[in-house]
Amino acid sequence: MTKKLKTGVIGLGRIGQIHLSNLVHHMPDAEVIIASDLSPTAHAFARDLGVPEVVTDAYDVINHPDVEAVIICSPTPFHVPYTVAAAEKGKHVFCEKPLDVTLEAIQAAEKAVSDNNVKLMLGFNRRFDANFMNVRHLVANEKIGEPHILRITSRDPAPPPVEYLKVSGGIFLDMSIHDFDMARYIVGSEVKEVFVKGDALIHPEIKEFGDIDTAVIVLTFENGAIGVIDNSRKAVYGYDQRLEIFGSKGMAKAENNTTDTLIHFDSNGGHSSLPLHFFLERYETAYRVCLKTFIDCVLKDTPSPVDAHDGLMATAIGIAAMKSLTEGRSVKLDEVLQYAAAVQE
Amino acid sequence: MTKKLKTGVIGLGRIGQIHLSNLVHHMPDAEVIIASDLSPTAHAFARDLGVPEVVTDAYDVINHPDVEAVIICSPTPFHVPYTVAAAEKGKHVFCEKPLDVTLEAIQAAEKAVSDNNVKLMLGFNRRFDANFMNVRHLVANEKIGEPHILRITSRDPAPPPVEYLKVSGGIFLDMSIHDFDMARYIVGSEVKEVFVKGDALIHPEIKEFGDIDTAVIVLTFENGAIGVIDNSRKAVYGYDQRLEIFGSKGMAKAENNTTDTLIHFDSNGGHSSLPLHFFLERYETAYRVCLKTFIDCVLKDTPSPVDAHDGLMATAIGIAAMKSLTEGRSVKLDEVLQYAAAVQE
Amino acid sequence: MTKKLKTGVIGLGRIGQIHLSNLVHHMPDAEVIIASDLSPTAHAFARDLGVPEVVTDAYDVINHPDVEAVIICSPTPFHVPYTVAAAEKGKHVFCEKPLDVTLEAIQAAEKAVSDNNVKLMLGFNRRFDANFMNVRHLVANEKIGEPHILRITSRDPAPPPVEYLKVSGGIFLDMSIHDFDMARYIVGSEVKEVFVKGDALIHPEIKEFGDIDTAVIVLTFENGAIGVIDNSRKAVYGYDQRLEIFGSKGMAKAENNTTDTLIHFDSNGGHSSLPLHFFLERYETAYRVCLKTFIDCVLKDTPSPVDAHDGLMATAIGIAAMKSLTEGRSVKLDEVLQYAAAVQE
Amino acid sequence: MTKKLKTGVIGLGRIGQIHLSNLVHHMPDAEVIIASDLSPTAHAFARDLGVPEVVTDAYDVINHPDVEAVIICSPTPFHVPYTVAAAEKGKHVFCEKPLDVTLEAIQAAEKAVSDNNVKLMLGFNRRFDANFMNVRHLVANEKIGEPHILRITSRDPAPPPVEYLKVSGGIFLDMSIHDFDMARYIVGSEVKEVFVKGDALIHPEIKEFGDIDTAVIVLTFENGAIGVIDNSRKAVYGYDQRLEIFGSKGMAKAENNTTDTLIHFDSNGGHSSLPLHFFLERYETAYRVCLKTFIDCVLKDTPSPVDAHDGLMATAIGIAAMKSLTEGRSVKLDEVLQYAAAVQE
Repeated sequence: MTKKLKTGVIGLGRIGQIHLSNLVHHMPDAEVIIASDLSPTAHAFARDLGVPEVVTDAYDVINHPDVEAVIICSPTPFHVPYTVAAAEKGKHVFCEKPLDVTLEAIQAAEKAVSDNNVKLMLGFNRRFDANFMNVRHLVANEKIGEPHILRITSRDPAPPPVEYLKVSGGIFLDMSIHDFDMARYIVGSEVKEVFVKGDALIHPEIKEFGDIDTAVIVLTFENGAIGVIDNSRKAVYGYDQRLEIFGSKGMAKAENNTTDTLIHFDSNGGHSSLPLHFFLERYETAYRVCLKTFIDCVLKDTPSPVDAHDGLMATAIGIAAMKSLTEGRSVKLDEVLQYAAAVQE
Repeated sequence: MTKKLKTGVIGLGRIGQIHLSNLVHHMPDAEVIIASDLSPTAHAFARDLGVPEVVTDAYDVINHPDVEAVIICSPTPFHVPYTVAAAEKGKHVFCEKPLDVTLEAIQAAEKAVSDNNVKLMLGFNRRFDANFMNVRHLVANEKIGEPHILRITSRDPAPPPVEYLKVSGGIFLDMSIHDFDMARYIVGSEVKEVFVKGDALIHPEIKEFGDIDTAVIVLTFENGAIGVIDNSRKAVYGYDQRLEIFGSKGMAKAENNTTDTLIHFDSNGGHSSLPLHFFLERYETAYRVCLKTFIDCVLKDTPSPVDAHDGLMATAIGIAAMKSLTEGRSVKLDEVLQYAAAVQE
Repeated sequence: MTKKLKTGVIGLGRIGQIHLSNLVHHMPDAEVIIASDLSPTAHAFARDLGVPEVVTDAYDVINHPDVEAVIICSPTPFHVPYTVAAAEKGKHVFCEKPLDVTLEAIQAAEKAVSDNNVKLMLGFNRRFDANFMNVRHLVANEKIGEPHILRITSRDPAPPPVEYLKVSGGIFLDMSIHDFDMARYIVGSEVKEVFVKGDALIHPEIKEFGDIDTAVIVLTFENGAIGVIDNSRKAVYGYDQRLEIFGSKGMAKAENNTTDTLIHFDSNGGHSSLPLHFFLERYETAYRVCLKTFIDCVLKDTPSPVDAHDGLMATAIGIAAMKSLTEGRSVKLDEVLQYAAAVQE
Repeated sequence: MTKKLKTGVIGLGRIGQIHLSNLVHHMPDAEVIIASDLSPTAHAFARDLGVPEVVTDAYDVINHPDVEAVIICSPTPFHVPYTVAAAEKGKHVFCEKPLDVTLEAIQAAEKAVSDNNVKLMLGFNRRFDANFMNVRHLVANEKIGEPHILRITSRDPAPPPVEYLKVSGGIFLDMSIHDFDMARYIVGSEVKEVFVKGDALIHPEIKEFGDIDTAVIVLTFENGAIGVIDNSRKAVYGYDQRLEIFGSKGMAKAENNTTDTLIHFDSNGGHSSLPLHFFLERYETAYRVCLKTFIDCVLKDTPSPVDAHDGLMATAIGIAAMKSLTEGRSVKLDEVLQYAAAVQE
């Protein structure tokens, strides 16, 4: 019988519950020996799934002597402290995105992980979606040739409450950050410049606190490709997650997944079904593949496919995007990265 | 300068006008020197297009000393008489489908054409549609492997008036005959057996005179393939013209052509456009390519791609289909062909 | 806390393992207290999933005093004996298809279920596929109008070994039976006549024992609709599961599910992905929904959506199909049903 | 009999020949009484089509006493001089795009047309393509709600020779100008700001003379919408002409037109056909509808749907785009328009 990876889960909110369920039902190579959360409901959820120990303090998970890897699903401000603490205890870390909203904190996590020789994988689950993974494979296998133009459409079905938006860190770090990571993943090159044009067309009131809900973001890559992301917080027809890469040898695109393949024709035309509602449905399998990849990479001691550098770059692009929006100009990523480097020293 | 083929057009009804317009506007290698019809409106139509001589008697076209090829668009009962007369005058013939509703008449036409060494091409225009032609090319190039299953869906947007249906010769010779020809063309093998299940689900009153408006027709081919055609006189969403061939190496299908490629998504789903309305729109280009092919085959002296044998087989399948419907059993094509051969002797 | 339905699973082959996994991981309203199989591997599988009692004798499951419902996944010949035994013990039954290959046995099961007032649900899982369920909803809600033509394409990616085919009961009861049930489900009317044209185009040797691998089946329904099923044991491009219903108000079709939504364009054209490989992938969710429906219908005491009558009709159509193939004629279902009724008396 | 509009055609290059053929074959309400070109081949082409008078001097067309409308297909530098001359003679004008590459010249043409009360229509044929027209209708009928995001993909199958590119006026006025007009047409609002990121990824040598072949262009509209155009001079899979408009009530997109609707499945996946090759094929019908619209608008005295203001704005956006590329910043359209206005005074 193969050895199972002993894991502990920190944070049992929506995303933590997804990871916990997946660990219990779909990861025969892992077991959850402890989980933490403050909420009694979350404790009941974990106990129902058979987790032997459920605690309130995250450090009880990190410090548990048998835990080999921690799955961090806490609110963002705790990502780095828990990652650093776990690394220092020699535990591997799977951490939800974004790793942090400042480059300095991310660099601290990166250092802890490196110094302690543990693995860190970030939960950029979309990379593990079959559509996007297969587009990436075409690019990596040079079926597209030199990448010239990348297009990402990423629109949510409905915006979160304004109260949430106030503390969300802004559209770029809360929502577009997935697209920034996807852009780097698909093109296979670093972003060097960002330009944003955006507005609050759905909830004009969020402009008051400097946020927007509609954005067109132009990314320039070091390999010469030009990318464009369009984001909206509200697509009435559902979660719109498409992308297209165009290059010297051809083009590949991933269309939406729909609830079914039905087409109904009447005298008004053809009628087809909506996209899968939102990220829980759309990325159900991707969440599973993502977590399984982490477990495999720990058990087989292979490099993490999404590491602290990926977290750093996604956040840096987000910071540059906000700078571009605020200052109304194109912002070079170096401006952001050098400032961080200077602070670091 | 290349020599132009001198043609005469017989019959200027709907289909005759299409052919005449195409000859005038799109066939630089042909000219129309005479046309015939009984109706004054048709005469005006021809004169407006610049036809120098417009007459009432079809034989004036056939006998015109300069006419090298006649385009026969008269009512069906005149197809064979005009074809025979033209052949005997050494004129090439393009004739609308069906060549005739009896096998004996078709055989007479075949003999006249053969004895006088002229070309006869039948207006099975759908063979010249880009969708179906490309499916045929895949089959001919063995991309599908051995053909196993053929599916043809052929549904009209609206039935003709009941008065027309009474004299139409029945659904098989009036409507399905195109599909019978298409079946032989796509599969590249002769039909050997026919089974029909049909009903008058749209206009029950047409059962009184032995006709139906909804049919499922099973064809067995000499090469082992099995085909199925489904016909309806009324598809409320428009003209439905699709087919699919399935074989040992794969499958190819041709979908409908639509008025545009628009897709509109709202909170109810996706909405796409209707198929092109009816045969005039759907086969506009095919009519042109079909006629051009005839002109080329005369000018270059190549074999007719759709000859009397094709007309014979399409009509024979139609007769077998009617026999199957009436007698409620599967009918071998030999039953129909041998009877014709016996009568012939 | 809600009461959980206590179930026992009989037979842990491929399909039994699917049901067991689904019960354990995805059915919070049910628990498996016992399971039976002859194979030690199957026992290990069940124990790994936490089944408290694993036995070799199916009757230990049926007779277990706490078992309220049995899930029968044994070979077909045991379906009816186990169903009858369970019914007589007052246990509800979920049974894999086909219920049996003879109408007499099915009627015996039907009687036992009825006499003992228990529920019987058959595992026609495809009815619970989102594509087909939504087509049925359109028909049931009269969005299609009067059904005129039904088309089902059902092709397997690869045939089972010839050794299996010899004991399979023939293509109609082994493979097409799913399509017969689907046809009745979609059209919402009984089949009254069956005509088959078929051949062994993939493995000619199976003709020796009276089987075929390629079939076109015409079904006539009591409500006037005409249906056509095309079956093949080998579609090199994968599992092909589509259907279309055409009626007086419109048409609805369900296309294949694919591995991803990718389209890749190069100078040769567009390239898209294959259908999901086979039934395990294609109907993964349908298996789950199907079983959950059974549990709900027991717990809420609602009628079984797929009962013994459905099993009887699917098998009867299969018998009629074989008769049509053998005798080369259209076979009325009454011929088959009356014979069974006569035997019954 | 209805009066026919007497027209003269100036310039019989590729596009002039298309318009002339369409006038002769497809515009029963117009007749061509004179045409001009310098080339003897062009003269032969016109005579073959039956044009009674063919001349070398464009002013012979403009001054012909019977000519009521001129169709200007000359090289761009002659567009405005001929338009002004025709207007001063009281002739209506259909002129190919762009009207001119300077705003001053366009304003001169606008004044001449207005002072002499004639119609001017520009040949922005893509507005008359069924796909895009129907998207516009959805927007105009408020089916999309408030427009938020516009996406246009416009990629040519192959770049013109570098020699042509040197004198083309640059990608924005030569190629993107169609997209600028389309953007204004679809959104129904004026562009107020332009940002460009572009590069010479296909032919690096054209950077020497300040041109590019790959561009992402962000447009901000007065109504708040944000648009993005992506252009490439070379898509190896053919002419890629798609667009999408996203708004508060939904989204509509127009996909490419393809050579046929074939899909071929083999063990590698599905294979579909290429887009229609280039503008002659893709916009064949749009050219016809565009010209017919001009003739109708003259005969019925309705306003020109694409007038000098449309030409002015398309060129102004092109100038702003070049300025953005050169200066590496977002450029407000007012900068360009005010400069022109200042020069004007």
